[in-house]
Amino acid sequence: MNIEVCFSPQSYPLFHNPNAVVVVIDVLRATSAITTAFFNGVAKMIPVATVEEAITYKENGFLVAAERDAEIVAGFDLGNSPFGYMNTKVKGKTIAITTTNGTQAITAAKNAHKVIVGSFLNLDTVIEFLKKEQKDVLFLCAGWKNKFNLEDSLFAGAVAEALIYKFGFNTICDSTIASIELYKQAKHNLYDFLSNSSHRNRLARLDLERDIRYCLTPNQCPVLPVLEGKFLVKGN
Amino acid sequence: MNIEVCFSPQSYPLFHNPNAVVVVIDVLRATSAITTAFFNGVAKMIPVATVEEAITYKENGFLVAAERDAEIVAGFDLGNSPFGYMNTKVKGKTIAITTTNGTQAITAAKNAHKVIVGSFLNLDTVIEFLKKEQKDVLFLCAGWKNKFNLEDSLFAGAVAEALIYKFGFNTICDSTIASIELYKQAKHNLYDFLSNSSHRNRLARLDLERDIRYCLTPNQCPVLPVLEGKFLVKGN
Repeated sequence: MNIEVCFSPQSYPLFHNPNAVVVVIDVLRATSAITTAFFNGVAKMIPVATVEEAITYKENGFLVAAERDAEIVAGFDLGNSPFGYMNTKVKGKTIAITTTNGTQAITAAKNAHKVIVGSFLNLDTVIEFLKKEQKDVLFLCAGWKNKFNLEDSLFAGAVAEALIYKFGFNTICDSTIASIELYKQAKHNLYDFLSNSSHRNRLARLDLERDIRYCLTPNQCPVLPVLEGKFLVKGN
Repeated sequence: MNIEVCFSPQSYPLFHNPNAVVVVIDVLRATSAITTAFFNGVAKMIPVATVEEAITYKENGFLVAAERDAEIVAGFDLGNSPFGYMNTKVKGKTIAITTTNGTQAITAAKNAHKVIVGSFLNLDTVIEFLKKEQKDVLFLCAGWKNKFNLEDSLFAGAVAEALIYKFGFNTICDSTIASIELYKQAKHNLYDFLSNSSHRNRLARLDLERDIRYCLTPNQCPVLPVLEGKFLVKGN
């Protein structure tokens, strides 16, 4: 079972592997929000790439989340702050969601063998699933507008380290090696390691320190969002 | 003076900065070979993207280097092994060169404010030049067929670390932070750190250990290849 890490949705076609499970990662904050939503009882989510599609869902009566540049788009119910999903109003609902980076990445990977959603919030759940699947793994980092970001590659490194050192997976991919090496340096204090990162600073300017601390705290939401057709559903 | 690192020529348009000096990096082996060539007295080099262009230069009497997938293309005089340029035959010559990744990256950056060629062989020369220029810096890693590679980002990290910690440059770019962190881990033994890297293994299979050891040994060739129009020339 071979592991690769793709640092940007733009590069996904270079990595496409029909036999791989694709783990989509947008730690700050889309995949953390999605994981939180399922942990809080959301029934289904519909990731859409554009605000226009999100508007259509809203006009059809759906609860809709829309975020661009770290803020809720005007007129929408939710953004990608995980705290927006920690209430009983979302329970049993189907929520359409579009975000700057994360839902673009899910959309890019939609034709893969299997697509799952990863974040530090469901770290061990993701590892357990991949261990059982016994397939190649491709981590697709959402990044920031197609640029590399640290937090997504750190999560890829966290999972890859476990799969390689404990469960017999392997890699010949430099971005996987880099992700693992970065995670080894960061894992004792993710928050401090990311203190200079571009996206953490972008969110800090928007006063979202609480979101960041939450998104970097592993294993608070042991659920596995899985893509089935156009829906994300709870896979465990 | 702001620093950014672009991990793949494919992503270059996202990073294009008209005020930046672009440092093109293909440690194994194109920019190491080019640096070695100028240190051994080559007058000019003409980086070309395709083998077809290289053939045209050959038909017009030029000395021509052509490498694809780590081997010399049949019918050409040189590839991208630095040792091919360590002889008196190249002195004073103009050499056209095309390689799998490196010359593609130079070609991608040709409209930048200034383009220079970096490798561990001219590490301190690159740092000195950038320190004097006092401009933004964009490291353009050639990678391998548009995928991230370790050795190019390690070189970017080596230069970025010096510019930021000693000479007042700064960064808000996650790929720059990652490159510096990786370099900090690797710098005490680049050769061992890269022992698992994909490209080192690719070259090792081709029995090029001597090339790798040479390319990872800093400051053997204190020259600065600079792009002027379609030519690379010695800029110091």
